[in-house]
Amino acid sequence: MTAATLFTAGDAGAWQVEGIEACVGASLPEAAWLTVSVGVATPGAGPAWTLRGVTSNQRYTNRHEQPRLLAKQPPLDRPEATCAALIAIRKSAAWWALAQDERREILEERSHHIEIGLDYLPGVARRLYHSRDLGEPFDFVTWFEYPPEQAGAFDELLIRLRVTPEWEHVEREVDVRLAR
Amino acid sequence: MTAATLFTAGDAGAWQVEGIEACVGASLPEAAWLTVSVGVATPGAGPAWTLRGVTSNQRYTNRHEQPRLLAKQPPLDRPEATCAALIAIRKSAAWWALAQDERREILEERSHHIEIGLDYLPGVARRLYHSRDLGEPFDFVTWFEYPPEQAGAFDELLIRLRVTPEWEHVEREVDVRLAR
Repeated sequence: MTAATLFTAGDAGAWQVEGIEACVGASLPEAAWLTVSVGVATPGAGPAWTLRGVTSNQRYTNRHEQPRLLAKQPPLDRPEATCAALIAIRKSAAWWALAQDERREILEERSHHIEIGLDYLPGVARRLYHSRDLGEPFDFVTWFEYPPEQAGAFDELLIRLRVTPEWEHVEREVDVRLAR
Repeated sequence: MTAATLFTAGDAGAWQVEGIEACVGASLPEAAWLTVSVGVATPGAGPAWTLRGVTSNQRYTNRHEQPRLLAKQPPLDRPEATCAALIAIRKSAAWWALAQDERREILEERSHHIEIGLDYLPGVARRLYHSRDLGEPFDFVTWFEYPPEQAGAFDELLIRLRVTPEWEHVEREVDVRLAR
């Protein structure tokens, strides 16, 4: 059993919103602060928006990639990781109608999503939350944390991913930058 | 976006419960009737139990299997399909920690789950609902519908699946039989 994680944007929170950018499709409403909480909605009336997601099993990672990821990936909440990004993505209906091996082929054999991500570990910590089966407006929320000196590397990671064949299937993407 | 389907057991419903059997682990409470509804809880106080799940993308089916399934699988709600079964399953934490290709190998290359299922199409209609990411007590609810003359074939399908290596990872399974 998995409790959902809530990303609540509004007028209070541990993270200050530095910018919200719509990369593909509609944006999210402006907000000044963001709170990450597990299982329970944060108190306070009228958040600007709330996104929900659950950590779940790996969907594409194979037996060779998984131990390399586990060995290299840092935890969240490192004291020096004062920068964060929330990237919310929805993929097309055509993507979801593909067979498992077709999605894997686009994601990794053609787009190298897992390999590219490995290049930025352990500098950029990352956690993927699945939202699609919760009836959310986005399929995924990916949460990144990094120290300020990794900000350039993080932007490079996004540039490399956004030109891949996988990203042709992204029909909505919003990029929220935060600091604490 | 996917609305959850609710399976509500209690004292009213379109399906009469003929039996509830715990195959592995704890059973579900006895109930006389079951209702299948989409998105909204059924009215009436005090259901015996409610399970929730969402139809989602395929997790293991490859590009060769998917068109064969689509070509052979019948719809639900066929007038002659007056028998149904609800099979609720939870797999172990060790299963979910496996890499995607390791789970696929156990499920299909070693257990032939998809191939065995194809043998019983179009006699037995089947729909898989995913529950794990909703925080439910089971990972899946599979709903089957078949005419009475397919009851023996359906039991054979279950016997074949339950002796596979995949089933060694099942830590709870409840089998509910129904008729309308």
